Amino acid sequence: MSGVETLRVSHDVAVVHTTHPFVIARGGTSEHRLIRIRVTAHDGTEGWGEAAPNRFYGETPDTALAALARLAPIVERCDPWALEHVEAEMNAALRFNGSVKSALSAALHDLAGKRLGVPLYRLWGLDPARAPLSSFTIAIAASDDELRQRIAQAADYPVLKVKLGTDRDEQIIRTVRAAAREKILRVDANAAWTPKQALAMIDVLADCGVEYVEQPVAAQDLDGLRFVRERSALPVIADESCVVATDVARLAGLVDGINIKLSKCGGLREALKMIATARAHGMRVMAGCMIETSLGITAAAHFAPLLDYADFDGAALLTDDPYVGATIARGRIAIPDGPGLGVKQRGID
Amino acid sequence: MSGVETLRVSHDVAVVHTTHPFVIARGGTSEHRLIRIRVTAHDGTEGWGEAAPNRFYGETPDTALAALARLAPIVERCDPWALEHVEAEMNAALRFNGSVKSALSAALHDLAGKRLGVPLYRLWGLDPARAPLSSFTIAIAASDDELRQRIAQAADYPVLKVKLGTDRDEQIIRTVRAAAREKILRVDANAAWTPKQALAMIDVLADCGVEYVEQPVAAQDLDGLRFVRERSALPVIADESCVVATDVARLAGLVDGINIKLSKCGGLREALKMIATARAHGMRVMAGCMIETSLGITAAAHFAPLLDYADFDGAALLTDDPYVGATIARGRIAIPDGPGLGVKQRGID
Repeated sequence: MSGVETLRVSHDVAVVHTTHPFVIARGGTSEHRLIRIRVTAHDGTEGWGEAAPNRFYGETPDTALAALARLAPIVERCDPWALEHVEAEMNAALRFNGSVKSALSAALHDLAGKRLGVPLYRLWGLDPARAPLSSFTIAIAASDDELRQRIAQAADYPVLKVKLGTDRDEQIIRTVRAAAREKILRVDANAAWTPKQALAMIDVLADCGVEYVEQPVAAQDLDGLRFVRERSALPVIADESCVVATDVARLAGLVDGINIKLSKCGGLREALKMIATARAHGMRVMAGCMIETSLGITAAAHFAPLLDYADFDGAALLTDDPYVGATIARGRIAIPDGPGLGVKQRGID
Repeated sequence: MSGVETLRVSHDVAVVHTTHPFVIARGGTSEHRLIRIRVTAHDGTEGWGEAAPNRFYGETPDTALAALARLAPIVERCDPWALEHVEAEMNAALRFNGSVKSALSAALHDLAGKRLGVPLYRLWGLDPARAPLSSFTIAIAASDDELRQRIAQAADYPVLKVKLGTDRDEQIIRTVRAAAREKILRVDANAAWTPKQALAMIDVLADCGVEYVEQPVAAQDLDGLRFVRERSALPVIADESCVVATDVARLAGLVDGINIKLSKCGGLREALKMIATARAHGMRVMAGCMIETSLGITAAAHFAPLLDYADFDGAALLTDDPYVGATIARGRIAIPDGPGLGVKQRGID
């Protein structure tokens, strides 16, 4: 079936800004460069996708553009319906570079859905009403006052995800809990703790009624993950340790759940495979995002009905989101019901 | 989204016959009763599926009909697009009874594909040209003469799957190899051997150039599977030991691969989840069938592009297949390209 038609792949770079500098344990910034990808079929139908390259996973906007130059020809000569094969070919051509592969995968899925006239969630047999609530992220603030200000701005969100991994983690989580007494709190340490620090902090987190802790220890420290999980009062979710589906298999028995991100895993199909593998092992499944526009967020939102936990606030943190797609008003994920991803440019009907 | 529309579920029982009595290690017969299921939408569009109940998995035609009475109301009030949820609801309502659940799942997938105007493989993003060759099964014969006659009748098939589990297994496999010198041979012991018998036989099978051995020991004997696999010169594939996706997780590291059957696993989505889980663990993936018509076979054939090995001869063994669907001429699986399953009644265009 390959060579049935040819697609054209084009791209540009979008610069977007967060309301506050988005700081996590590894640092942060308020300006973010994203690669927008467009696949165009002969009949003019377009599929859209977005890459949010992240240095932790070896990507920058420049590596993403270079990877795109390598991967675009594969997409241009592929059978656009044979999505399984396209993802496999991209993986065979170039390892890692998950954000670019996911953007191309999203664009092809968008195209397929548009051609069939159905939203992606329907193509996948999912009920959009079954998406869990999304959390809203409280990044690392410079002071307690700033922290309280952010919590106040997040008043509409019933679930907060608190970034830790500082020298004043206990102070942060107690401040958040005091300012948000009724909310569900989750914590993401972004690999910042040693296993022993993690256990000490988890006692504090449990005392504050935190729901789970994400990536307490270094990404490669699987023994540390197991050590923490076996002693932890809270469920442990792997994020930086869990990039693709084979990682889920490797982590089975070591953690309680996984966090999927399209920018890590390299494709919408890979994300679904991660979910299937995790479920077969009885693991919990979360999905998250980077700082992304509504275009990037929406690609992940379409599989939200398969998740236990979602953290899809990447676009909600922006001042200048160029797209309208999935929304998370008061934590509720509304997946657009237009064909494909169902994403539109803001201000254009 | 539930309650958006209502479907009507109807069924009948088809009696089909094999050319020869289909005998495996547990016995056999030449008459087979299958349950045909039809879901009908308001606009008259129909989805079809077929249940091949198998006693080994606790099903008879009568239990299948009783299970259908329990499950049909779930399908009748479901959102027919929310396939994930329907399979989950059926599993929550009634354990096991995989053949009936798979038939309902197939009918809903057929309906979805017909409504979107695309074959199921396209809905799943698969390239039909990538299906592996299918084997043709040489069941247990009453004599060497009969065995040689069967092999002669299978002359067109490049891959033979030989049923063993008798008191003359070595004689059978050597007779097959002598009569089919150039063919790929696979062996299925259908759980008939002890681990020690298995190792002794595998030496013979390796000497005969057999490609792999399926289910050498009892279904529940996971220690036995591991024992055999660790000492076996041939890859070991789990069939009776592997029913659903959680079994794949349990078998990881104990066997080299799994054999998926819709009549075991209870749904087309469950089958895809088994494949994803197996791949995440680096396991090989085979799919097989029971004695089924082309309706049942075709539901599985649509995911053949995801397989390493296929054994889809269930309809080819029949004298009175009422359907036209996927075919396996000379081992090549041709998946129909009509909408949905693409299955038609034989003699009706």
